[in-house]
Amino acid sequence: KILFDKQFGTPVNPSIRKGESKVVDSVDIEDLGNQAVFCRCWRSSKFPYCDGSHTKHNSACGDNVGPLIIKSKE
Amino acid sequence: KILFDKQFGTPVNPSIRKGESKVVDSVDIEDLGNQAVFCRCWRSSKFPYCDGSHTKHNSACGDNVGPLIIKSKE
Ligand code: FES
Ligand code: FES
Repeated sequence: KILFDKQFGTPVNPSIRKGESKVVDSVDIEDLGNQAVFCRCWRSSKFPYCDGSHTKHNSACGDNVGPLIIKSKE
Repeated sequence: KILFDKQFGTPVNPSIRKGESKVVDSVDIEDLGNQAVFCRCWRSSKFPYCDGSHTKHNSACGDNVGPLIIKSKE
């Protein structure tokens, strides 16, 4: 069991780049191609990109998170 | 206290659009302008955009999450 104090809330990132004080990613628009799918669940093995791990996370703990899709209109 | 089963992990999204089974956002590249900063901590009042709430979240529960920045090279 993990015990978290409700007042402080629960961490979102269990294991990605924990050596960094704040995990920020910066991507150039010019490098996006037609579409890029970015992870927001912090479980992807291809972080910062989504690899579908949100599905397992959501079903395991009843969450409802999904990725950010940046796509070109054409 | 909140008790989560370590095996299942902890939810990432306490309160954003909980009526949706999976919160996915899709943004067109053409609408990004020079820079857009997207939330990955699920605490922003301007979700899917970052409003700085990650700072309070990180200090409250010792996490290290930050936004995704999409910017133009020019
Ligand atoms: S793997 Fe994290 S949002 Fe898809
Ligand atoms: S407010 Fe969520 S990442 Fe900044």
